[in-house]
Amino acid sequence: MPSFSEHLEAAIRAKKTPVMVGLDPRYDLLPDEFKSGGCSCCDGHRHESGDSMGDYVNPEQIATAFGRFCIRVIDIVAPLVPAIKPQMAFFEQYGSVGMFALEHVIQYAQLKGLLVILDGKRNDIGSTAEAYADGLLGANMSIWGGDALTVSPYLGDDSIEPFAKVARERDAGIFVLVKTSNKGGAMLQDLVANGQPLYRHVAEYVESLNASDFAPNGYGNIGAVVGATWPEQLAELRRLMPHTWFLVPGYGSQGGSAHDVAGAFDANGLGALVNNSRGIIFAHKTGHFAGKFDRWEDAVRAATQDMIAQLAADTPTGKLR
Amino acid sequence: MPSFSEHLEAAIRAKKTPVMVGLDPRYDLLPDEFKSGGCSCCDGHRHESGDSMGDYVNPEQIATAFGRFCIRVIDIVAPLVPAIKPQMAFFEQYGSVGMFALEHVIQYAQLKGLLVILDGKRNDIGSTAEAYADGLLGANMSIWGGDALTVSPYLGDDSIEPFAKVARERDAGIFVLVKTSNKGGAMLQDLVANGQPLYRHVAEYVESLNASDFAPNGYGNIGAVVGATWPEQLAELRRLMPHTWFLVPGYGSQGGSAHDVAGAFDANGLGALVNNSRGIIFAHKTGHFAGKFDRWEDAVRAATQDMIAQLAADTPTGKLR
Repeated sequence: MPSFSEHLEAAIRAKKTPVMVGLDPRYDLLPDEFKSGGCSCCDGHRHESGDSMGDYVNPEQIATAFGRFCIRVIDIVAPLVPAIKPQMAFFEQYGSVGMFALEHVIQYAQLKGLLVILDGKRNDIGSTAEAYADGLLGANMSIWGGDALTVSPYLGDDSIEPFAKVARERDAGIFVLVKTSNKGGAMLQDLVANGQPLYRHVAEYVESLNASDFAPNGYGNIGAVVGATWPEQLAELRRLMPHTWFLVPGYGSQGGSAHDVAGAFDANGLGALVNNSRGIIFAHKTGHFAGKFDRWEDAVRAATQDMIAQLAADTPTGKLR
Repeated sequence: MPSFSEHLEAAIRAKKTPVMVGLDPRYDLLPDEFKSGGCSCCDGHRHESGDSMGDYVNPEQIATAFGRFCIRVIDIVAPLVPAIKPQMAFFEQYGSVGMFALEHVIQYAQLKGLLVILDGKRNDIGSTAEAYADGLLGANMSIWGGDALTVSPYLGDDSIEPFAKVARERDAGIFVLVKTSNKGGAMLQDLVANGQPLYRHVAEYVESLNASDFAPNGYGNIGAVVGATWPEQLAELRRLMPHTWFLVPGYGSQGGSAHDVAGAFDANGLGALVNNSRGIIFAHKTGHFAGKFDRWEDAVRAATQDMIAQLAADTPTGKLR
């Protein structure tokens, strides 16, 4: 059975692009057809007493709308990209009914041949980390069924090992936060200890997990999250982590361009997935394609194709085509 | 309306102890009455084909058992302690049905007058952190309804601010990981930058959030997680963080004693909650009280009372009694 790294390579080669679509649903940005006649003033919060409750949208309605919307997005992007990245926070925000919708989104995406990278940034120690890994990792081998999961590293090596172990056993992957796209990430990640910033300590640890256990494509199953907003560090970390897949957030609405992420790739155009969430799924409302199409689906498709073309033009991923 | 810090003080004073019971349910450790005739060889995983599936226990059955068990534990400990700490991983492990059980456990605990500290170690940036905070924080004001939530700090200050903001608005709290109980925590947390270990950088940031915004009891709403397994650092951080509540894990099965956690408290016996999970909820199967009672409930009660007595004897919390 192929490893996660091999699955990922095959998926990228099949679609000829490393573009990943982030599923970050927000009720107020959904196309109108998914809104159940609710008010536009809120996204399902309880209204203060005295407000008219006639248009109140309950969590079940929002969760249902999220599920329906994400499935339509998947239908559009599945022929174009190798992977989706559901952001667990936006589903968890609406309770267990939100999580129920997420389960269906994951299953549907995999039926459509997409890899599913769960963005949960989970982290804990010992048997608790095992519980997260057991529940979340492994398509058809776990309850959630993620092909991979993002993991936060503050708790150290013995908190990452349980995730890495389960990932290995189930041909799944993890992506450990190394250098995140937000400005405040510098607060801890750029602190210099023993002559190098903290993020490089994490980077060296992650690379060490892959250096003795990688697929014929050169990459292991323990990836790293490195933000598109740090082009220099992307290139630096590509050199420092030759056996590590990158998940690159921060493209588009956070400011990262195709040129900025060029350093994330090896000479063959492999080595990274580049995520875009709002810039694709809400392309009918924000960014370059807003208002340019009658159907929101056409804006989603155009934004996806545009990002694929930009990466192909300005990064080594052009070699995949 | 009182702040989280004031709620916490009142709850500790009412029960005269800072003992918190961690709800970490595991199917294989549940008392037999909660097991639905399932096999004892597994905790609900799919059996390989060829196995007898007659005793297969599905996720719904496990989630139901978790809910029933936790509610019985709450009935026992609610008269004795101020707070419970559900570990979200053990519920999430069984999918949305596990999360549905967690929702009911949270609601039941609050009906019984307990504060609910959700142990999710959530972390993300910007509007994603807001989504977690919005969904999880605020009794009767959010869908999950946690009184507080644990938060992991690797993403930096702008990842913690959205949680702190929602906590403030809804009289809820957060506990930021500072110095965790596991051995591997040292890997990053003890790296020395600018003359002090990383955990002290996090500690100073957390304290800074409280120093200008604390209740008459002297403590703010942004707490810190500091493990019982590091007695020296507990005392050091108590001095460094005079306005910060501590959540102290690692008591009991991880090796921390009442003497070890003494440094977490101020002279009046306030300043910390000390958690015990397995040592209480599975006291009928592990530790000092295993096999000593006919009814598992009596072991849970005895273990809780024993921990309360030990803390009262060996720490300043004796002054609460």
